Amino acid sequence: MSGITRRQLLVGGAGVAGMGAAGALVASMVPRDDREASANSGGQSVVPFHGVHQAGITTPAQDRLYFAAFDVISDDRSELRRVLDAWTAAALQMVAGQEAGEFGAVGGPYPAPPDDTGEALGLPAAHLTITVGVGRSLFVDADGHDRFGLADRLPEALIDLPHFPTDNLDPGRSGGDLCVQACADDPQVAFHAVRNLARIGFGVVSLRWSQLGFGRTSSTSSAQVTPRNLFGFKDGTANLMAEETDELDRHVWVQPSDDPAADWLVGGSYLVARRINMHIETWDRTSLQEQENIVGRTKGSGAPMSGGDEFTPPDFAVSGRGGLPLVAEGSHLRLAHPSMNSGVRMLRRGYNFTDGSDGLGRLDAGLFFIAYVRDARTQFVPMQANMARNDLMAEYLEHTGSALFAVLPGVPEGRSYADALLG
Amino acid sequence: MSGITRRQLLVGGAGVAGMGAAGALVASMVPRDDREASANSGGQSVVPFHGVHQAGITTPAQDRLYFAAFDVISDDRSELRRVLDAWTAAALQMVAGQEAGEFGAVGGPYPAPPDDTGEALGLPAAHLTITVGVGRSLFVDADGHDRFGLADRLPEALIDLPHFPTDNLDPGRSGGDLCVQACADDPQVAFHAVRNLARIGFGVVSLRWSQLGFGRTSSTSSAQVTPRNLFGFKDGTANLMAEETDELDRHVWVQPSDDPAADWLVGGSYLVARRINMHIETWDRTSLQEQENIVGRTKGSGAPMSGGDEFTPPDFAVSGRGGLPLVAEGSHLRLAHPSMNSGVRMLRRGYNFTDGSDGLGRLDAGLFFIAYVRDARTQFVPMQANMARNDLMAEYLEHTGSALFAVLPGVPEGRSYADALLG
Repeated sequence: MSGITRRQLLVGGAGVAGMGAAGALVASMVPRDDREASANSGGQSVVPFHGVHQAGITTPAQDRLYFAAFDVISDDRSELRRVLDAWTAAALQMVAGQEAGEFGAVGGPYPAPPDDTGEALGLPAAHLTITVGVGRSLFVDADGHDRFGLADRLPEALIDLPHFPTDNLDPGRSGGDLCVQACADDPQVAFHAVRNLARIGFGVVSLRWSQLGFGRTSSTSSAQVTPRNLFGFKDGTANLMAEETDELDRHVWVQPSDDPAADWLVGGSYLVARRINMHIETWDRTSLQEQENIVGRTKGSGAPMSGGDEFTPPDFAVSGRGGLPLVAEGSHLRLAHPSMNSGVRMLRRGYNFTDGSDGLGRLDAGLFFIAYVRDARTQFVPMQANMARNDLMAEYLEHTGSALFAVLPGVPEGRSYADALLG
Repeated sequence: MSGITRRQLLVGGAGVAGMGAAGALVASMVPRDDREASANSGGQSVVPFHGVHQAGITTPAQDRLYFAAFDVISDDRSELRRVLDAWTAAALQMVAGQEAGEFGAVGGPYPAPPDDTGEALGLPAAHLTITVGVGRSLFVDADGHDRFGLADRLPEALIDLPHFPTDNLDPGRSGGDLCVQACADDPQVAFHAVRNLARIGFGVVSLRWSQLGFGRTSSTSSAQVTPRNLFGFKDGTANLMAEETDELDRHVWVQPSDDPAADWLVGGSYLVARRINMHIETWDRTSLQEQENIVGRTKGSGAPMSGGDEFTPPDFAVSGRGGLPLVAEGSHLRLAHPSMNSGVRMLRRGYNFTDGSDGLGRLDAGLFFIAYVRDARTQFVPMQANMARNDLMAEYLEHTGSALFAVLPGVPEGRSYADALLG
């Protein structure tokens, strides 16, 4: 592949004419999601692909998400490898702000379908990351059958998540053999990435479900401002941050000692995806007092109800009128706090979503929860079991989709997504 | 309402700390969709609300859309007025980057539900526009009954759109008594606007359907770069532009002579909304040659197949090998061209969309087509009838939603959305 890309050739002429030095300055400072200003600043908004871990986990959370789960519809292991190899090549191109492949020869005969679908032509890299994981069903099918000779590599921690009390799961929004988390500052860039991986995988993988997320709900770097979920509250204040490298080793990255069967996964992680519908209309008719009591934080600043500012640690012991704790017993803050969960933390990377309305005058909207953990059995499962039972917020929530994926380790230069898993 | 807003109060302290002069410079130059940089630059990204026409039509097309159609579930005209008045007040606040209302007293008793839902706290105005229209069903119900004493104000041009050959309409994604088009550079800001209008209208209006759009497909100002639709082609090259004021009078704005019954609508327009599903997987397996033949433009530069660059007028007379016209007879470009449509033009303002997948491994995605016209009977209807029959692209398209709204004239200072219609 030549160093000059089709996108640069196409865009270089008209797209950036007349920008000059001021434009270039702005582009280099704020390349995010401003296509006119930054069409030629791909280099400024490129997240490196290679590394010990995949990008898209501790990468400062981009504003937009397109998440997809795929089923493998072939039973040929070499076909699976071929697709994962092709995905690697395409991902390398796309995260660099280039097309997934040539989209056709200009001026010559061009009888073949394009190797890129074109809708991201002229758009910047937009901090695109593509993060790939594998589901339990890739290893063994529902009958326990070893589909691709991978059963002996099935990590113990890659469980079927148990049923939780607030679950009302749609099988069409749950599970999957493979997952692709595409994050970018431009949803068209994220969509383009998933769509081209689906196109490349045609005949071998089939899209099972997908989800567009339009506003991130977590910071994953201490340099980011905490965003708000659709309950209107800051979400992710106490999230694990990229800067906490020791904590990431403890809570996120799979370690050599974790599971002899899953040595191949060292440097990887586990991704818990939950599509959580919020009963927004009910919430919006709840008093501010009740909302803050449920969350355990003030709606404005995000400070704990025990006082201080957003980043003040909550004081669960302090009581107010009537002797009741200021941070309520059933508040989300208290129940999700590490001190109430054996010190467990997760790296959250969720996004708000809306898929229109439900035909009954209500928004189909909520939180597409994503958490990265080292072991869901000791991190997500006990916390969610506790929260589904005791969280005052639970009555406003309905979990409609669920999946757990083992996220592949980082891909070294010259290697493929397939290598760690398929050898 | 005081000049210092709650949002500013809340954000002023922590959100912008340490930005300094460089940050302020960037914010003033590129306030779009960068929340850290522009949280305090509301003034830079505010689109004026008042005017002869509503904003959101000739306003340079923002990147994101949330569109909603509502049914009025009350039969009380004064309730309808109350909601439209309250919508006006809230819209004024929100387009200025402020909350829809107070979200609760800080530090005092606060037993009431907040008057703002909170998820846009700290976000800039993001060029939010809120554009309101009314459907035929608001004037007369299916039985021709005059619902609110408005039957004598029903514009002749506010028709039920006829059935077209590629229609496969979902009633749950069609029609509506009222529409709200919220456009912004941040989808969370657009969503917030619609959600708060729905909240304000509780008990009087009910959400009928809604649509999130993630990438605009049209430029409405000659200063904008032409974006791409999900077929990967530039879309809207020949769109009506804000700078063509004479053409807008001719093709978009309702004029005093148009309809004696609809004098109240002068300065308004008609909005055609069509949810057009694209058969993306089929398209992606079509050769580039065929794709360009169908569209009538090259995929790279967007130049007509007759030659030149993107903005070169197409030459429908020039032929190539075998005597066939270079711009094919059934090409989208030819069939949509004013010269093939009695000189008719439309102001298009569409967005790409995806609502996940269809359960059969295919993306539920396409174009949420929006066009502003002076009279759909002479503009949209004959063009769409022709295209549904003859457009080579038609086999890749399926129209799944449809609506026509009369878009209210601009709201003068101190007045309400209700005034033109309800008097």
